[in-house]
Amino acid sequence: MVHVIDIDDPADTRLDDFRDLNSSDRRPDLPEGKGLVIAEGVLVAQRLLASRFEPISLLGVDRRLTELADDLEGVDVPFYRTSADVMAEVVGFHLNRGVLAAAHRPPPLELEEVLRGARTVAVLEGVNDHENIGSMFRNAAGLGVDAVLFGGSTADPLYRRAVRVSMGHVLRVPFARVPEWPRGLHVLRDNGFQLISLTPNPSAVTLAEAMTGDKVALLLGAEGPGLSEYAMRNTDVRARIPMAPGTDSLNVATAAAMAFYERVRTAG
Amino acid sequence: MVHVIDIDDPADTRLDDFRDLNSSDRRPDLPEGKGLVIAEGVLVAQRLLASRFEPISLLGVDRRLTELADDLEGVDVPFYRTSADVMAEVVGFHLNRGVLAAAHRPPPLELEEVLRGARTVAVLEGVNDHENIGSMFRNAAGLGVDAVLFGGSTADPLYRRAVRVSMGHVLRVPFARVPEWPRGLHVLRDNGFQLISLTPNPSAVTLAEAMTGDKVALLLGAEGPGLSEYAMRNTDVRARIPMAPGTDSLNVATAAAMAFYERVRTAG
Repeated sequence: MVHVIDIDDPADTRLDDFRDLNSSDRRPDLPEGKGLVIAEGVLVAQRLLASRFEPISLLGVDRRLTELADDLEGVDVPFYRTSADVMAEVVGFHLNRGVLAAAHRPPPLELEEVLRGARTVAVLEGVNDHENIGSMFRNAAGLGVDAVLFGGSTADPLYRRAVRVSMGHVLRVPFARVPEWPRGLHVLRDNGFQLISLTPNPSAVTLAEAMTGDKVALLLGAEGPGLSEYAMRNTDVRARIPMAPGTDSLNVATAAAMAFYERVRTAG
Repeated sequence: MVHVIDIDDPADTRLDDFRDLNSSDRRPDLPEGKGLVIAEGVLVAQRLLASRFEPISLLGVDRRLTELADDLEGVDVPFYRTSADVMAEVVGFHLNRGVLAAAHRPPPLELEEVLRGARTVAVLEGVNDHENIGSMFRNAAGLGVDAVLFGGSTADPLYRRAVRVSMGHVLRVPFARVPEWPRGLHVLRDNGFQLISLTPNPSAVTLAEAMTGDKVALLLGAEGPGLSEYAMRNTDVRARIPMAPGTDSLNVATAAAMAFYERVRTAG
């Protein structure tokens, strides 16, 4: 059962995990200096409560407590109930969503673990924009992508902004690092995945032609540099999204969405 | 020839069109109270200079003037050359891009005019987020969509944020309003367009099945409400993007990108 605790004093130290959210992603006191997982709003809090992430506490107004009643059944953490004004003072800005949940970062999942049972995975190299990472997870969830994998120096998917933009789907879609990037990609091949590099190169085959595997890994690089040649050499085929002549590359989350769409269209 | 004018005083009234950019979209002194078209950065300024939009002046640092030299050939407007610090003081924040161009809003294009020669158009109803509008134009340009049409109360595509997010493609991809929304959609049908409503409704046919026309109009509504029933009744077919069960709708610009992709895939 959730413990409802009324708090009126914004300086109450029990609220420290929600303090000054604009800098909450840096926590020198925690392992690796990374912040807790913060869910904002009812929908994302619900996803957190239904996820593998272990909640620590919630902070919110009474109305949100009521809305979350069913989701909080059997959840044994405090719900700090307060006013919108006290919340604003604690977090450092006015939050329209009225509720926050904090959770521990679980130990990272292993690659083999997230590949088990998966048929479609996205592999991101060097994508370091939290908004793009968040969008990517939202699109992955929407289009039935089973896991997201990271190679190279990719932004933290549990950063507050990424959690928010993903609408909480970073808490649902499993993710893992590919060790020894990019050589570690052989683990995907060993598990029967066709490895497809996305590239704007007009001499590549189209995505529709390339995607023939029963299990598919879609590799994408950051907007601008794209996938490294080093990564592409470790894949089976290079594929392009057909683009209008004379236009730039697409946003990486948008390109991923099209690749996910192509996969759903052909593999159901 | 561009006239280079050196300015050191941030209070110089010749810079007024670039003053306090955070509120530059509201200009009570201009027709309809709407701001000028503002292009930020070299790439977007280049697109503006190559567009139907008539430039008024540019403000930028010397290095950007050099970079734009070719694009400014035959352009008969002042380039106010100054320092990054003076620019920051004028616009109200620090702008990394180092150059701005201002242009007049041209009279709106007529629907018939933008349909001429077009084979693929997007029609947006009630999309009132400038970032989504901007992304939509970027995706439209990238995937060869010929025009964007607006019905209902849709956000202004020439808003500064929309121009920026579109990477200047709102200045290239023609757009127009559909008069008498949604009855005015008959103009598209009269011009041979197949009208396709995008809907998350699982009983709709898939986009791939629906898209059969030689000329296609893709209708999308805002995230959340989606297209109005009133608009959908004026279209030929309702189509869905295949989604994973239990997930939300997609972001509207992402859904549009998938529809544009499906069109390129099948119609080339």
